[in-house]
Amino acid sequence: MSEELIGIIKGLCEKSERRILLTVADGLGGLPMEPGGPTELEAAKTPNLDRLAPVSDLGLLEPVGPGITPGSGPAHLALFGYDPVKYNIGRGVLEGLGIDFPLTGRDVAARFNFATVDGSGMLVDRRAGRLSTEENRRLVRKLRDGIRVGKGLEVFIETVKEHRGLLVVRGEGLQGDIHDTDPQELGVPALPAQATNPRAEKTAAIVNDLIAQAAAILKGEPKGNMILLRGFARHEPLPTMGERYGVRACAVAQYPMYRGLARLVGMTVAPHTASTAEDLKELGAHFPSFDFFYLHFKKTDSRGEDGDFPAKVGAIEELDRMIPELLALKPDVFALTADHSTPCVLAMHSWHPVPLLLHSPYCRPTGAKRFTERNCAGGSLGLRPSTDLMPILLAHARKLIKFGA
Amino acid sequence: MSEELIGIIKGLCEKSERRILLTVADGLGGLPMEPGGPTELEAAKTPNLDRLAPVSDLGLLEPVGPGITPGSGPAHLALFGYDPVKYNIGRGVLEGLGIDFPLTGRDVAARFNFATVDGSGMLVDRRAGRLSTEENRRLVRKLRDGIRVGKGLEVFIETVKEHRGLLVVRGEGLQGDIHDTDPQELGVPALPAQATNPRAEKTAAIVNDLIAQAAAILKGEPKGNMILLRGFARHEPLPTMGERYGVRACAVAQYPMYRGLARLVGMTVAPHTASTAEDLKELGAHFPSFDFFYLHFKKTDSRGEDGDFPAKVGAIEELDRMIPELLALKPDVFALTADHSTPCVLAMHSWHPVPLLLHSPYCRPTGAKRFTERNCAGGSLGLRPSTDLMPILLAHARKLIKFGA
Repeated sequence: MSEELIGIIKGLCEKSERRILLTVADGLGGLPMEPGGPTELEAAKTPNLDRLAPVSDLGLLEPVGPGITPGSGPAHLALFGYDPVKYNIGRGVLEGLGIDFPLTGRDVAARFNFATVDGSGMLVDRRAGRLSTEENRRLVRKLRDGIRVGKGLEVFIETVKEHRGLLVVRGEGLQGDIHDTDPQELGVPALPAQATNPRAEKTAAIVNDLIAQAAAILKGEPKGNMILLRGFARHEPLPTMGERYGVRACAVAQYPMYRGLARLVGMTVAPHTASTAEDLKELGAHFPSFDFFYLHFKKTDSRGEDGDFPAKVGAIEELDRMIPELLALKPDVFALTADHSTPCVLAMHSWHPVPLLLHSPYCRPTGAKRFTERNCAGGSLGLRPSTDLMPILLAHARKLIKFGA
Repeated sequence: MSEELIGIIKGLCEKSERRILLTVADGLGGLPMEPGGPTELEAAKTPNLDRLAPVSDLGLLEPVGPGITPGSGPAHLALFGYDPVKYNIGRGVLEGLGIDFPLTGRDVAARFNFATVDGSGMLVDRRAGRLSTEENRRLVRKLRDGIRVGKGLEVFIETVKEHRGLLVVRGEGLQGDIHDTDPQELGVPALPAQATNPRAEKTAAIVNDLIAQAAAILKGEPKGNMILLRGFARHEPLPTMGERYGVRACAVAQYPMYRGLARLVGMTVAPHTASTAEDLKELGAHFPSFDFFYLHFKKTDSRGEDGDFPAKVGAIEELDRMIPELLALKPDVFALTADHSTPCVLAMHSWHPVPLLLHSPYCRPTGAKRFTERNCAGGSLGLRPSTDLMPILLAHARKLIKFGA
């Protein structure tokens, strides 16, 4: 969608009480395990979706572009109507979102590994023997206690998992144009943090000082006496969904990455949940106070990544059992789709468009009896970029006024 | 479509005698009145379209963008191949088109209301009691008789309907960047015409002089002693269809807005008609002299706006009865589509893509037995922006040569 068109849509948005419920079944799109076989959606028993399909619009959404296999970040941003190419979120920022770290517009974030160097500073293990998360936490505590920074600066050091962590530097005028310090090979020293743009030189100097302090603090640790940084990125706050669409948006998601992505586009994120039952409870509790809801369902992706076809079919059946409770909330517009496909036969994200079901009083069903990739391919919504979804949802919720006379 | 592609298509156009007949059934696209019900097209008895559908290409056109409900202006421009976002026609110009006023490239147009002010110039009625069209005509005659303008300038004052009118100022170097003078509230005076861009200051001064003259002329009228102006727009002539596609284009349309839109893109507009029989007569009379024809059919939209499902079905059946006479003209390419959808269930324009039928010797029918939204969703032309239509029509008329070797 062109910038002009995005601007026009923004100008057409009108506040209303009508509610949109967007359920994102992560990695839902699938493939047959062998030619002629069913996809995961086709193999699943989905009585509730089967009732919805004949009275809904179906279609296919392409997350980023033809042939492009997206990560969760760009795939979700596209569903929320943000061009994932324009809003290319840096790795450091994504890592921050992934651990639910509340980033601000004054932050530069980078991922780090604990690594091990020998007596002369040469790398002998870039992952410090994949030390345990517990051991990671101990080293992080040591760094937090020891590191000192100048006035006007703050530093946050966070455990991610095993040997991985997150470094956030907060202050005025910081920039993320800094080269990785991980040389990607052994027997050489870590690289200094080098600015790739003159505007980042001050930030690079701060980072080099932090690395030197870290090395001094970690000296003597048999595993993890150094840190290697990569994916430096300044956090650029995005226009919020409220600003772009005039909606009050609320997210219900169990996993930190999705909670972080929702926060990135200005959604209110419901308290942590750990089960489908808790998700439904939070959704119900927030339903009166918001008019756009993003519900994230993770298992379809996890079982797809496992390559476990029967388990992904089971996840889809669990999703299907949620449908009556979701519809009982009486959303004016109900949509079910995926951020990307995760076919079991590939056991990873894929480039295939994702199935979309949209239910409102203003649908043009084409007679499909089930919600499957195949039926979506002949659906009335056609094959479209994922970024088309938001304006279509807004239109079905009667939140877009007429363009021109 | 990118500007580059538009330029390429322009370079590929080749004149030929082959004729394209594009019938636009205004607001044709519909919806079921209740889940599981038929759309207006599905409910209509359309024996002639039923004969055509199995030997034609079907598809769906999206007028402006996903979720966008277009007005008639942008929706028609898109069908004629003009990007409706780039060629966003100002309200004043559209009002001029709507009363069939022949605008030129030296014109700034604005809509006006007759309003009533009290003795101290404060607004007491922004619509002058919605005075009658007859009364409007009397006041317009008074203004025409009294208003004087400087050398090189012309002013046109036109009745639209009830309290509404059109002001056109014609001269060299005029600009439309002028703020509305309607303050949108009572108890305050009308705003002066203020330039929103320095280039429009001269025009704003001319307009302020006209307003002062109008106030003096209308002084003493109990209702309508002031005018409020809004929607100032300079008329920017568009490249004509002849320039863009090498066609000689002719329009047959009963309503002034559509005649004006056709004139805007350089079509020759057939004399006024008031019935389908007259439309067919004019079309026949002009058929030998042109190679592109735009025929506008209004009733499908009017009955849709009324929310009268049986009446819209009846309008579609009337349209169907025209088909044999249209085909008897032996156009090389016959297309039937809509500018936008006007589903009875909404009783207004909507964002839904419009059905398209294209008949030529070079079609790839997919076996659909009827021309319905549902069958169009699975058609061989797919779902496309409305701006794609013109080059496809030109191609079927063998008016586009090969691109590249």
